[in-house]
Amino acid sequence: MTVSMEKIPHPRSVVWREDRLLLLDQRRLPTETVYLELTTPEEVREAIVKLAVRGAPAIGTAAAFGMYLGVKDIPDVDAGRFWSTLRRVGENLRSARPTAVNLAWALERIRRRLETLKERPVSELKAALLAEAHEIQREDADMCRKIGEHLLTLLEDGMGVLTHCNAGGLATAAYGTALAPLYLAKERGWHLRVFADETRPVLQGARLTAYELQQAGIDVTLICDNMAAAVMQKGWVQAVIVGTDRVAANGDVANKIGTYGLAVLAKAHGIPFYVAAPTSSIDLQTATGADIPIEERPAEEVTRGFGAVTAPEGVQVYNPAFDVTPAELVTAIITEHGVIRPPFGPGLQEAVQRSQG
Amino acid sequence: MTVSMEKIPHPRSVVWREDRLLLLDQRRLPTETVYLELTTPEEVREAIVKLAVRGAPAIGTAAAFGMYLGVKDIPDVDAGRFWSTLRRVGENLRSARPTAVNLAWALERIRRRLETLKERPVSELKAALLAEAHEIQREDADMCRKIGEHLLTLLEDGMGVLTHCNAGGLATAAYGTALAPLYLAKERGWHLRVFADETRPVLQGARLTAYELQQAGIDVTLICDNMAAAVMQKGWVQAVIVGTDRVAANGDVANKIGTYGLAVLAKAHGIPFYVAAPTSSIDLQTATGADIPIEERPAEEVTRGFGAVTAPEGVQVYNPAFDVTPAELVTAIITEHGVIRPPFGPGLQEAVQRSQG
Repeated sequence: MTVSMEKIPHPRSVVWREDRLLLLDQRRLPTETVYLELTTPEEVREAIVKLAVRGAPAIGTAAAFGMYLGVKDIPDVDAGRFWSTLRRVGENLRSARPTAVNLAWALERIRRRLETLKERPVSELKAALLAEAHEIQREDADMCRKIGEHLLTLLEDGMGVLTHCNAGGLATAAYGTALAPLYLAKERGWHLRVFADETRPVLQGARLTAYELQQAGIDVTLICDNMAAAVMQKGWVQAVIVGTDRVAANGDVANKIGTYGLAVLAKAHGIPFYVAAPTSSIDLQTATGADIPIEERPAEEVTRGFGAVTAPEGVQVYNPAFDVTPAELVTAIITEHGVIRPPFGPGLQEAVQRSQG
Repeated sequence: MTVSMEKIPHPRSVVWREDRLLLLDQRRLPTETVYLELTTPEEVREAIVKLAVRGAPAIGTAAAFGMYLGVKDIPDVDAGRFWSTLRRVGENLRSARPTAVNLAWALERIRRRLETLKERPVSELKAALLAEAHEIQREDADMCRKIGEHLLTLLEDGMGVLTHCNAGGLATAAYGTALAPLYLAKERGWHLRVFADETRPVLQGARLTAYELQQAGIDVTLICDNMAAAVMQKGWVQAVIVGTDRVAANGDVANKIGTYGLAVLAKAHGIPFYVAAPTSSIDLQTATGADIPIEERPAEEVTRGFGAVTAPEGVQVYNPAFDVTPAELVTAIITEHGVIRPPFGPGLQEAVQRSQG
């Protein structure tokens, strides 16, 4: 079911209202602002799988509310069913996007919170779960602003910045991660010239990044992915900033397909390559990028992505959703706690410890 | 006006029939095989501008026949009008694609041929012009096969080859340039695994390269442009082969946007980067790539290229048609006369001399 834009005062990716989860259907941007109205965790899982909601933090927040949808109607007397349902729903949601460590992180955080309340009545557990989902969302907005402030220390007024995919406000509660410094720079009156890769096959850069930056009055120029090198060659780019789905313990970075190529190009042109990484996207259990599973997506995303058939019937397609950028191509990883420089291992550990402490 | 596929025994890009030029409308591939039936040079120019015909050699051939269309109905008694029309039509056709040196080359070749017949009757000049257009087309097929044979000496059975845009049979009279070795390898019973970049914004790789290689039974896998780096990272590519619109005297190469980035990526992965270049695409008058004008194309190619609106209304777009790959990133330039290694200057001069001699 969908609801119209009029019900939501400002476009936001994840909105909780009257026991329902409203998700801005990002597949329909930039031409339509439509919210999906979800009432079951299965619907939330489908929205994640089908990319209606995307961006690691937004997915984590959506999944947290999805957990609540899964248990909210369980009778308060049935504690056994509450706990077994919680486990089943959690596993189901977690499997929606294996690469997104934020998703697993949000679900694990809820599980831990509820473990501390183990003997309490089901009604209280439900309320705690919902409160935790809201808290995850609030902390996300706060975290984004901090990442933006740290990233801003690496930039200067007048610079050209290139970004890939959408690690923006639409991917998070506000500001975004990679795009946060662009909003903060705008607030300071700086002029940055932003280049947004369109980001095939799903065009998150064209549909989302160009949309949200344009809405904010930021100087954004859309390019095709294969134009990034030419733009760098012209000297128009002084920094590349991307988000991430997962950072391994050694600083290898999984992100939207195309990120690795940009990192190679940035190095060849002497341009710093920055990764905006909420601590929740750091996975110390993953030693290196080689241990990150790379999801392959359907051929149709490439061959008939936008209504037109753009390739011959039956052609073979390779369509990986992500790639891994080795740590040696990354200039700095920026979390809400600050700027981490190579070697990344100690700094990533410290950031995770600060978040847990 | 269009004619159906049934009239042409095999899909070919440029067909001369009964005083009309039939051009395979490559914008409608891979779903429709439709020929444009052209009777005036203005129609030929429009077909070049709007990319119905593309590929440097095919454009040159089409323009040659276009010249004939411009003069064929001039009364045989009116020599003055023949020569003035010839000049006007030539200038008009030449301006259709300033980057395509083949276009200028074909027109210049016709002019020179007719200059040698200056005192002959108009009827004879017309016949000579048409014969020259046919000769340009025949030589093109022969040249492609030779380029393919030279390129094949750089490859081995079992290799992975990555290509960009379409420098294939559809771009030429037969075989293509960059794709020629793939057809010849198939004839020899080799198995090459080919990766075709889809080549945004106009998707020549998805629509044309994937189509023609699939038709030929060659193992082709379609990828988005931003996946090339990941495919190289996996060790799947042992050679990158591209075509060119213009090679400068120092070996700098102008080709479809995205080529330069591929060359940087190939170098970073230790993969040889080969440029298939008919001698007609070598422009010794252009000292370096800095002197090659880069055409910018309409924003709509990027923002609504798939039939759907994929970017917000009014967003700024940078859409260069070509980029320039510096000679130091090119492993070898392959003409119909052989393989040229760096430094390219002397080899390019020799190739041009052999073609003129």
